Amino acid sequence: MTTHRVNGDRLNQTLQELARIGATDAGGVTRLALTDEDRAGRDLLRQWMEAAGLAVRIDDLGTMTGRRPGRNDALPPAQIGSHIDTVRQGGRYDGALGVLGGLEVIRSLNEAGIETDQPLELINWTNEEGVRFEPAMMASGVVAGRFTIADVYQKTDRNGHTFGDELTRIGYRGDAASRPGPAAAYVELHIEQGPVLESRDAPVGTVEGILGITWIDITVTGHADHAGPSPLSLRHDALLAAGRIVNAVREIAARDGDPVVGTVGRLDVEPNLINVIPGKVTLSADFRHPTERGLDRMVGELETACMRIAKDTATAIDLNRFWSILPTPFDPALLKAVDEATATFGLPAQRLWSGAGHDAKYIAEITPAAMIFVRSQGGLSHCEDEYSAPDDIAAGANVLLGAVLATSTGSGEPNPD
Amino acid sequence: MTTHRVNGDRLNQTLQELARIGATDAGGVTRLALTDEDRAGRDLLRQWMEAAGLAVRIDDLGTMTGRRPGRNDALPPAQIGSHIDTVRQGGRYDGALGVLGGLEVIRSLNEAGIETDQPLELINWTNEEGVRFEPAMMASGVVAGRFTIADVYQKTDRNGHTFGDELTRIGYRGDAASRPGPAAAYVELHIEQGPVLESRDAPVGTVEGILGITWIDITVTGHADHAGPSPLSLRHDALLAAGRIVNAVREIAARDGDPVVGTVGRLDVEPNLINVIPGKVTLSADFRHPTERGLDRMVGELETACMRIAKDTATAIDLNRFWSILPTPFDPALLKAVDEATATFGLPAQRLWSGAGHDAKYIAEITPAAMIFVRSQGGLSHCEDEYSAPDDIAAGANVLLGAVLATSTGSGEPNPD
Repeated sequence: MTTHRVNGDRLNQTLQELARIGATDAGGVTRLALTDEDRAGRDLLRQWMEAAGLAVRIDDLGTMTGRRPGRNDALPPAQIGSHIDTVRQGGRYDGALGVLGGLEVIRSLNEAGIETDQPLELINWTNEEGVRFEPAMMASGVVAGRFTIADVYQKTDRNGHTFGDELTRIGYRGDAASRPGPAAAYVELHIEQGPVLESRDAPVGTVEGILGITWIDITVTGHADHAGPSPLSLRHDALLAAGRIVNAVREIAARDGDPVVGTVGRLDVEPNLINVIPGKVTLSADFRHPTERGLDRMVGELETACMRIAKDTATAIDLNRFWSILPTPFDPALLKAVDEATATFGLPAQRLWSGAGHDAKYIAEITPAAMIFVRSQGGLSHCEDEYSAPDDIAAGANVLLGAVLATSTGSGEPNPD
Repeated sequence: MTTHRVNGDRLNQTLQELARIGATDAGGVTRLALTDEDRAGRDLLRQWMEAAGLAVRIDDLGTMTGRRPGRNDALPPAQIGSHIDTVRQGGRYDGALGVLGGLEVIRSLNEAGIETDQPLELINWTNEEGVRFEPAMMASGVVAGRFTIADVYQKTDRNGHTFGDELTRIGYRGDAASRPGPAAAYVELHIEQGPVLESRDAPVGTVEGILGITWIDITVTGHADHAGPSPLSLRHDALLAAGRIVNAVREIAARDGDPVVGTVGRLDVEPNLINVIPGKVTLSADFRHPTERGLDRMVGELETACMRIAKDTATAIDLNRFWSILPTPFDPALLKAVDEATATFGLPAQRLWSGAGHDAKYIAEITPAAMIFVRSQGGLSHCEDEYSAPDDIAAGANVLLGAVLATSTGSGEPNPD
């Protein structure tokens, strides 16, 4: 089997060129969904797609789909997708790598004269980040049937502009018939946004799925008193209880090992004065687990721990599990194809879970899906210091190319015609 | 020995009358130092003092001293003192009880025709609370040589008014020669502001001294990361470390038993978002102990604990012991007199420490001093719900009367002349 490779230099140059649109002084990018910057980014991407011979169509969500015909164009396509919108003061790689990595795959196939049986589609999803319009992964969510187009159009940004009006304004409101349909396969290349690959000294990893998430609000009610005159045994110290909850969240998550995590990210103390025993503390717990049963078990263990802590500290503790999203395991055959493509390039096949959401999460509900992660320096993302080395980026795109060819039946070699 | 008693009803009525000045809708009092309310309270107190035959003098701090001559007026006086300023939305008893309890002692001695060898002085200290002008216990601090009058005069409130100007404005700027001098004894009656007497079912307690205090600022530096993609073992979670510090502060304080206390009252998380591992936490520790050595040992144990926690959580922890005040043990002979006076009334003699500061703390540096605590319902104070039962208040004033008579040599019985 011939190992086809992308042009890594061209891909890295293309990434840097797109990063000029919305560039920040500190080397990052602010390119929020449906802004003038997003429009400029889309216009440039459209030029690149068309120059690569893709037939570009725009759907009613602003989703851009560039199609490369297959030998048998009636077959369901193999799709490559991600997004070019960013967070405020975000980085140059999050999202853009998946779209431009896909573009590079198309360019390389063109140069090598390779046809595939199935058509290939390159997709740029609208508003993955959910920063300007909530929630995140908006277009892929509509395509997967999670949200309705009517709801999405009414979403407003902080200035009262609606998603629908802004989509029209930037000239990217197309028709529902142009939406990407269910496909034979969907592969998304993305930076890891975490430190796992770096810690394993591996440039590329196969993403087994996206962890399920549960968010819990916790309220500890004690009694505020002067720090001096209140003996320890007569206190109702809400922060003492909260400190033990923070520890319990960690211990519960640690029991199941990686990739299970548990985090207390938010904690607020009242009245928050140096010499007053805290009367009330509100805090959050964020649990992530590859299985729904695992999530439920963690919550149950936290409830048990809080009952004990409340008793020991003479406080009252209320838990409110206010939001959950189920885990998404990716398609096993596609994961195997990614592993094999990785091995083809002499790289160690690495399995890891994604702790964050991606468009692939929703698309996995209608199409066999998988993701490929590229090592992130320092695990950083959603910041101006986000960085992946050019060689790692090239390696990720090579694996993407290999995986796409493996899923495209009867193809992989230049057309002998 | 005859057991002299105060008129409890009159004392409670007098307390309620003063509480009308600065009364809040919710049953509390706001009478900040050197405000119009403070002036009105002082004017009323002055009337009462003069009606009780006291010679009232005002010093350069606004301290009001009412003097009752002794048989031998050259002897150093026995002093009773406290303050009538309050915090914002404070209660009716904090401070006022000590001054009006002393007034009731004078009134009762007058009615019983009792003279004392030593003169008696009733003192209202200016700005004990330190709410409008910092620091607290201002006038007693100057008299004890802790602060200078020049510094005090320059202190400004939140509107830029100086202590000196406001003192003049309300008409209570007297002369330095009128300051209360060192005395034979100083006794301060005060509500407990804590739950100890209530938990012991005792109306009155003998205060052994005022705990020393150390305040420490603690900064935990970790690394902020997305809660999803960061495995537990690779985290630098500042809040996980801070939670363990909260627990360590409690454990260190609990080792020495009552009245030693340790409190984390303030804790701030950055960036404080539900799905971001906290990168930085700042928190405080408040340690209180009856001995200086004990305070130092607690701080040392906290440093050791933080070194261990920093290692276990891969964070950096900095401690800054930025403020300390030494413990003040009260005069043993005077404490014994308070115990004996308590027993005289058939009440259980109770020893306890004060965790909060009082004017007696500074005065103890120049005069043998002691304090008497009266049970506080629910341990509440500095709030509108502050409450001590009329019987407990009467009991406290009876003990004050007994202790003052015991310290006033050769007196205690009506003059046979």
